[in-house]
Amino acid sequence: MEAFSDGVIAILITIMVLELRIPHHAQLSALQGLRSIFFSYLLSFVFLGIYWNNHHHMLRATERINGKILWANLHLLFWLSLFPFVTGWMGENHFAKAPVITYGVIDLCAAIAYYILLRLILAEQGPDSVLARAIGRDVKGKASPIIYLIGIALGFVNRWLALGAYIVVALIWFIPDRRLEPRPSTEEIGA
Amino acid sequence: MEAFSDGVIAILITIMVLELRIPHHAQLSALQGLRSIFFSYLLSFVFLGIYWNNHHHMLRATERINGKILWANLHLLFWLSLFPFVTGWMGENHFAKAPVITYGVIDLCAAIAYYILLRLILAEQGPDSVLARAIGRDVKGKASPIIYLIGIALGFVNRWLALGAYIVVALIWFIPDRRLEPRPSTEEIGA
Amino acid sequence: MEAFSDGVIAILITIMVLELRIPHHAQLSALQGLRSIFFSYLLSFVFLGIYWNNHHHMLRATERINGKILWANLHLLFWLSLFPFVTGWMGENHFAKAPVITYGVIDLCAAIAYYILLRLILAEQGPDSVLARAIGRDVKGKASPIIYLIGIALGFVNRWLALGAYIVVALIWFIPDRRLEPRPSTEEIGA
Amino acid sequence: MEAFSDGVIAILITIMVLELRIPHHAQLSALQGLRSIFFSYLLSFVFLGIYWNNHHHMLRATERINGKILWANLHLLFWLSLFPFVTGWMGENHFAKAPVITYGVIDLCAAIAYYILLRLILAEQGPDSVLARAIGRDVKGKASPIIYLIGIALGFVNRWLALGAYIVVALIWFIPDRRLEPRPSTEEIGA
Repeated sequence: MEAFSDGVIAILITIMVLELRIPHHAQLSALQGLRSIFFSYLLSFVFLGIYWNNHHHMLRATERINGKILWANLHLLFWLSLFPFVTGWMGENHFAKAPVITYGVIDLCAAIAYYILLRLILAEQGPDSVLARAIGRDVKGKASPIIYLIGIALGFVNRWLALGAYIVVALIWFIPDRRLEPRPSTEEIGA
Repeated sequence: MEAFSDGVIAILITIMVLELRIPHHAQLSALQGLRSIFFSYLLSFVFLGIYWNNHHHMLRATERINGKILWANLHLLFWLSLFPFVTGWMGENHFAKAPVITYGVIDLCAAIAYYILLRLILAEQGPDSVLARAIGRDVKGKASPIIYLIGIALGFVNRWLALGAYIVVALIWFIPDRRLEPRPSTEEIGA
Repeated sequence: MEAFSDGVIAILITIMVLELRIPHHAQLSALQGLRSIFFSYLLSFVFLGIYWNNHHHMLRATERINGKILWANLHLLFWLSLFPFVTGWMGENHFAKAPVITYGVIDLCAAIAYYILLRLILAEQGPDSVLARAIGRDVKGKASPIIYLIGIALGFVNRWLALGAYIVVALIWFIPDRRLEPRPSTEEIGA
Repeated sequence: MEAFSDGVIAILITIMVLELRIPHHAQLSALQGLRSIFFSYLLSFVFLGIYWNNHHHMLRATERINGKILWANLHLLFWLSLFPFVTGWMGENHFAKAPVITYGVIDLCAAIAYYILLRLILAEQGPDSVLARAIGRDVKGKASPIIYLIGIALGFVNRWLALGAYIVVALIWFIPDRRLEPRPSTEEIGA
């Protein structure tokens, strides 16, 4: 399951860069027109990087899975697979209101899907598992959907406020979940 | 073989999303024109998810492979590789009759290829293998091609009946094959 | 090295299918215009499948690698990476003379690259290795470049003769190298 | 982490080949127009091959990772992900000045990102680790950014001088880092 998810996220990250269409002329000024697309790509690269990072740590601490977990994982991948679309739409339209709000909605759905996946995995491991103790109260996981919701609402007033909210979530998660960080070991390498 | 197949299915799932072309304007209404393509994508995402899921469980319970099995696996991947094409054709034409029927034909070919692969794997493991006992009478595997055939035939009368038949197959398989579900174990993780 | 090569071949196989452009109308007749592209795709799918298959078996029987082998492997992947291009060019132009000859040249380069890779791997394993005994005189490996050369020459006379020669090579290799087929074992699975 | 990075690099290498657009006519002369794009692709294929090669050897000699290393790795992958864009831009514009300089800037950023990643990994392994002894003074790693800087500066005078500098870096790295080459072992295979 980890190899498959890693594969999908790796492909999504790489497919997004195809939105950076090659300019037809060779002046440096041609790159200016790509600024919005570049920043949109950068933002989504960070988001997908965060998902990969946390997903990776979560599965490392997971000892048992079941059929429901496999489907919850596919559910998460489905929402992540819409990132290239919303990233391109937002970038090509220079962070216009509708794409920025839609971007937040996809972010929100992915965050909820991640939350569901985590809960199902926790339920399978039992209350005394390494993962359960590592996750603890899961403040980040609960705060993210709420911040996204606030961001989406703010987007109807001002799109930059919405973007600000999304960036706040990115910053919250940027630091990999120390709770789940594996004890350094040779096994970590060569996965 | 599992890593290669997982890779191909991961790429196919992700390539399909490229059909969701980015609209040139930034109104939310632009998303309405993509509804058919979105639902077509969703349907194929579920189908490929099911194949990945069952393929994964099947190989977990497989102890020996041979050259025929490798080719039967490539044969299955060939039909799966046509999913992005038929998915896009069906979605872009708002589930018109010809694409819907063609979609069913590809579904049917993939189902037959999966059946052949399973039979070859079962033959290699022997009649008393874990897999043979887990598969049992394989009602799902035998019913799927028949339902697809009925769906294709119905498609000539009414395309929605055909789509209904395909969705019935999806629902049948949605629940991962409990028969093959591995006993929860650490090995399952980190594959 | 095996995971990376498998990844590249999986992506190449899947990228080729993007050449099957989605028709803009929904009649079944639209598929007729895609016949050449479809057969071109099918041929290259088989070729890449053969390379994956033999590459997989070769690496399974390989016990030691070195820096030269890593580069010889990248050299092979380079020629394989040109398959989507020549496949699309040949298919879109209905097997016209120039693309068919170019296709053979890329086939030839890949076959030579495979031969070089095999020789370097054999040299590293030593004359008494499992691989050396399994490969034996390597009639297939030596015959393939010669048949490609004949095919390319014939292509200047008649393109169908060239295609015939390429298909002969495919048939020769179709049967996975029994010499290298691993003794059935649990290790084979879960790679 | 290695599987994910290998996946991203494999996809980047393969996506670059999509820039080799299929000509609309079937004369051999059509290939002449693709010469620049082909050489641009070849150069980037070698660069990404070098990164994969060294990255692979570095991680093989790595025994412990931490959160910072995961992000430094994503940082490297970000710059590598811009290779298809700059490669295509440089190739389509027949190695014009602006794209050639931009190509060098991306090369430089990737080289710096690799250097940071290596330093963080070395710090985690400790001064007496296998990796620290193998890397030694790291002349190549320190020389590369400097040569890139010189190349970028030369690019403002003459683009071919810039390209020459980039090729010098490629040649320096072409030989895989013998320092890190693993003792030949069965473990190397089947990674």
